[in-house]
Amino acid sequence: MPYRKVKCIVSYDGSNYAGYQIQTNGATVQQMLEEAIERITKEKTTVYASGRTDAGVHAKGQVFHFCTSSSIPVEKWPFAFASQLPHDISVQSAEEVHDSFHARYDVVEKTYRYCVMNRRFPDVFFRRYAWHIPRPLNVEAMITASRFLVGVHDFTSFCSVRSEKEVKVREIYEITFDRDEEGMLWISFRGNGFLYNMVRIMVGTLVKIGLSEKPADSIAQILEAKDRKKAGPTAPPQGLFLWEVGY
Amino acid sequence: MPYRKVKCIVSYDGSNYAGYQIQTNGATVQQMLEEAIERITKEKTTVYASGRTDAGVHAKGQVFHFCTSSSIPVEKWPFAFASQLPHDISVQSAEEVHDSFHARYDVVEKTYRYCVMNRRFPDVFFRRYAWHIPRPLNVEAMITASRFLVGVHDFTSFCSVRSEKEVKVREIYEITFDRDEEGMLWISFRGNGFLYNMVRIMVGTLVKIGLSEKPADSIAQILEAKDRKKAGPTAPPQGLFLWEVGY
Repeated sequence: MPYRKVKCIVSYDGSNYAGYQIQTNGATVQQMLEEAIERITKEKTTVYASGRTDAGVHAKGQVFHFCTSSSIPVEKWPFAFASQLPHDISVQSAEEVHDSFHARYDVVEKTYRYCVMNRRFPDVFFRRYAWHIPRPLNVEAMITASRFLVGVHDFTSFCSVRSEKEVKVREIYEITFDRDEEGMLWISFRGNGFLYNMVRIMVGTLVKIGLSEKPADSIAQILEAKDRKKAGPTAPPQGLFLWEVGY
Repeated sequence: MPYRKVKCIVSYDGSNYAGYQIQTNGATVQQMLEEAIERITKEKTTVYASGRTDAGVHAKGQVFHFCTSSSIPVEKWPFAFASQLPHDISVQSAEEVHDSFHARYDVVEKTYRYCVMNRRFPDVFFRRYAWHIPRPLNVEAMITASRFLVGVHDFTSFCSVRSEKEVKVREIYEITFDRDEEGMLWISFRGNGFLYNMVRIMVGTLVKIGLSEKPADSIAQILEAKDRKKAGPTAPPQGLFLWEVGY
C-alpha cells in the first residue's frame, strides 16, 4: 500500500481532558485521535500536533498530521473521525501533504485567543469557556500595557518555571482586544511561538493592570526582570483557545 | 416582618434539567430556585416563572417572582442566589415589584431564539446549544416561509397534541434570521405567547423548507389544516433559548 501523510485541523473542548499530549493521569486528545485512527485503519500510528495544550485548554484550530497506508480518500477522513471520536473533539478538515511536512516543526505562527467574562454575574453558557472577572476592567489600560509585549522579547518572566526551553526569546506580532455588549472580552495573541503558560501569564498580568493593581507601564520592568515572580498570576485554563496555526 | 415581592431575571443552561417546572422525574430549575431561597431565608416559598421551559431548553432571560419576609436588600438577592445555585443557573438581576405583579399573568410578549448550526462538521463549543444540520440550508426560502407565520393565526398545526390549551390563536410580531460566517443561524421569534412546542415545531418546519423538502408557501396550507401532522418535526430542545420576557 502507498504510504500517505494526512494533515488535519481539529477543534476540541478541553474541559474533560488532561491536556493534548499523552500522559498517565487522565484521557488526552492525542490518545483519542490515535485510538480513533487505530479503530478506523487497524494500524497503530502516532499523531503529531503543532504543540501541546494544557489540561482544560481548548482548541478551535489545532493542527496535527499522521501517516497511514489506509486507502480512505483523504476528504473522507473527517467523516471517519466523526464516527469514532467523542462529541467534544471534531476534525474539521483533512488534506494530503508532502512527506516533508511536519505539524510541529513547520509552524510559522500561532494565534491564541483568551476570553475574559467581565460582567457582574456569569453568562452560564460561557462558564466553561471564559474567566469570570466581576469587577469592571479598564480595557484602555490593558491595551496600553499590551503594546509593551508586542515585538521580540525575552519572555522568561511570562513563562512557567517548569519550562524546559533554554531560549525564551519569542516575537509577538499582534495583540488585539474585542469586547461585546455582553461583557465578553476576547484578547488575541499572534506570534511566532509561545512558551509554557505564556499566554495565560500575559492574560493574568493584563487583568491585574485592568483592575488597577499594577500600572500599565509595569510590563517593561517585568520583561526586564526575567523573573516569573514579577508577573501576574497564571489565568485559568478554561478561557484559553488555540485558535489558528499558520504554516 | 414586611412582606415583599421580588422579580428576578435568571439564565440557565437547561442541559442537565428535566425542564423548568417541578415534577417527579429529575431535577428542575424551579426546584433549584425554591431550595436556594429556603436555604437563604429558612422560608418555604413558591417561585412563579413567566412560563415553563421543556427538558433541555435553555433560558437567557427567564423571569420569575417570589414573596419573602426576608430583610435581605433586594439588590443583594443575585449574590445570595450565586452562593446557593449550581453553576448552570445564574440570577442576573432582582428588583422589588408591586404586590399586583405576576411573572406569568402579566407577560406582554416573549422572545425565543433558536440556534441552527449549519455547517458540515459541528462547532464543539456549541454542541449543547444548537441543532446541527450538516446539509446547506436555503435561508432565503426559510425567510420567505417565515413571513406566513407572522401575524395572528390559529397555531394548532404548530402545537404539540399534548397541549391542554383550548384556544390556539396567538400573534407572532416578528421572525428574524441572523447568520454568521461560522454557519450559526439564529432564528428569533417575538410574539404575545407561544404554545407547547410551538417554536420547536416552527423551526423543524422551516428547516424542512430550507432543505427543499417542503415549498416555502406550504406554511399557508399547514396553518389552514389545523393538524399537527401537516407540519415538520419538532426541532431538538438544545437549540432553543427563552431569550427575553416583556411586561
